[in-house]
Amino acid sequence: MEKWKRSARLVDITRHLLTQPYRLIPLTTFAEQYQAAKSSISEDLDIIHEVLEAEGNGKLETVAGAAGGVRYIPSISNDNALQVIGRLCEKLSNPERILPGGFLYMSDLLGDPTLLDDIGRIFAKVFAEKPVDVVMTVETKGIPIAYATASYLRAPVVIARYDYRVTEGSVVTVNTVSGSSRRMQQLSLSKRSLPEGSRVLIIDDFMKAGGTVRGMMDLLTEFKAEVVGVGVMLEAPAEERLVEEYVSLAQVAAIDVKEKMVRVETGNAFH
Amino acid sequence: MEKWKRSARLVDITRHLLTQPYRLIPLTTFAEQYQAAKSSISEDLDIIHEVLEAEGNGKLETVAGAAGGVRYIPSISNDNALQVIGRLCEKLSNPERILPGGFLYMSDLLGDPTLLDDIGRIFAKVFAEKPVDVVMTVETKGIPIAYATASYLRAPVVIARYDYRVTEGSVVTVNTVSGSSRRMQQLSLSKRSLPEGSRVLIIDDFMKAGGTVRGMMDLLTEFKAEVVGVGVMLEAPAEERLVEEYVSLAQVAAIDVKEKMVRVETGNAFH
Repeated sequence: MEKWKRSARLVDITRHLLTQPYRLIPLTTFAEQYQAAKSSISEDLDIIHEVLEAEGNGKLETVAGAAGGVRYIPSISNDNALQVIGRLCEKLSNPERILPGGFLYMSDLLGDPTLLDDIGRIFAKVFAEKPVDVVMTVETKGIPIAYATASYLRAPVVIARYDYRVTEGSVVTVNTVSGSSRRMQQLSLSKRSLPEGSRVLIIDDFMKAGGTVRGMMDLLTEFKAEVVGVGVMLEAPAEERLVEEYVSLAQVAAIDVKEKMVRVETGNAFH
Repeated sequence: MEKWKRSARLVDITRHLLTQPYRLIPLTTFAEQYQAAKSSISEDLDIIHEVLEAEGNGKLETVAGAAGGVRYIPSISNDNALQVIGRLCEKLSNPERILPGGFLYMSDLLGDPTLLDDIGRIFAKVFAEKPVDVVMTVETKGIPIAYATASYLRAPVVIARYDYRVTEGSVVTVNTVSGSSRRMQQLSLSKRSLPEGSRVLIIDDFMKAGGTVRGMMDLLTEFKAEVVGVGVMLEAPAEERLVEEYVSLAQVAAIDVKEKMVRVETGNAFH
């Protein structure tokens, strides 16, 4: 491989870092790949860092020493995050989304990769200071948001299931009460999926009383794991809340099924 | 905003394009944002295109005219794709993955964002020439692969469900026979989730006889939708196959539950 020009290096290093958030890459890797001096690579990284930070898109973090290197810490500017959440609230406030029982149809939003990517970036920003070993969610609708978040935190995802299957191997099961429907449900997690002592970020699409999140917390107790945060895309008013600390991106401020009216506002994430 | 230097522009344009595959961005957007001549932006794009193509990481496509612009078509080099699949096969060939019934434990792999990202890029390359309006999968384990693929194709995801819930609204339901277990199951898809005439790419984690994929195809017939491709991460030998055309990344070449032996090889994607 011949020597690379700075312009080509900048493009390729940017690609390398952006596609692998939180991964520590030794400077020598870049120096060898591009046949460049480490001092030139350092200058490249300075430029990339400045551009990322100026636009609120994250930063590069340099770790000194033999095991050191550089890694990309993703983020999103407050302005951009609030814009994303604003658009989300507007879409959720469409009365055609109201379903029997006062639920909101959200499957289309949870199927939109651009929105999911933005939400993942916002949660990654919110929980950037937490030591997250694993992102946990529950089937089905929480899964895309959990993955979007995990990809920006570079953490694996584990999925709790209501009906476990043979393909999970041995599982641990707890009973949960869905606060909204007062129904008992079993929630299971594959034994192999989580090492003891893991620090876990719980992510879900929707929370009312918080029975499902509570169930995930109970499961984590069985795994001697620690909950370092809870993030939900949308929260709805509940008479009693089974979860005390959580971050929500949006919240149902008012809903009237009969009058076909729903108003969704910014959640507590940016309060 | 002051005038940007070329080096800073290169970093930011690379970020813009890479984080939004297939999105057509007018050159004037870049010219205005960086206070630069369109000819300078064109030169930047040439550099980015060359670097991406040289490494097999995709290309930039320019669309001329008033509604034109530039978009990033993601890809992965054959070498890199085969490396990813090789590592996947090695991991899947671990006899500790064998579960009762001859299934393989894969939840850890399906929870690894780096692997998923690579798989998404491979499927996006395989189906790049197909007109994909929507990526479809079935709960639960296919979901992360479907999203990884959809994010590189910039298409929405729809999820068929075995047990639909109130939050889906009205649904269409078909009966499927799981070829492996000869069990009847109902498979449902929310009516709102798919416009008539959609061109659909089906993505799933695992296929044996193909009963689940067949079920999704039957559902799509009900929606007057067209199947433009089927991609599965892992296929296993089956006496009869309910699906004729599909792309697999890996295949179970041999499995012996009693002897605790499994051998997984490259699938048909690169044959």
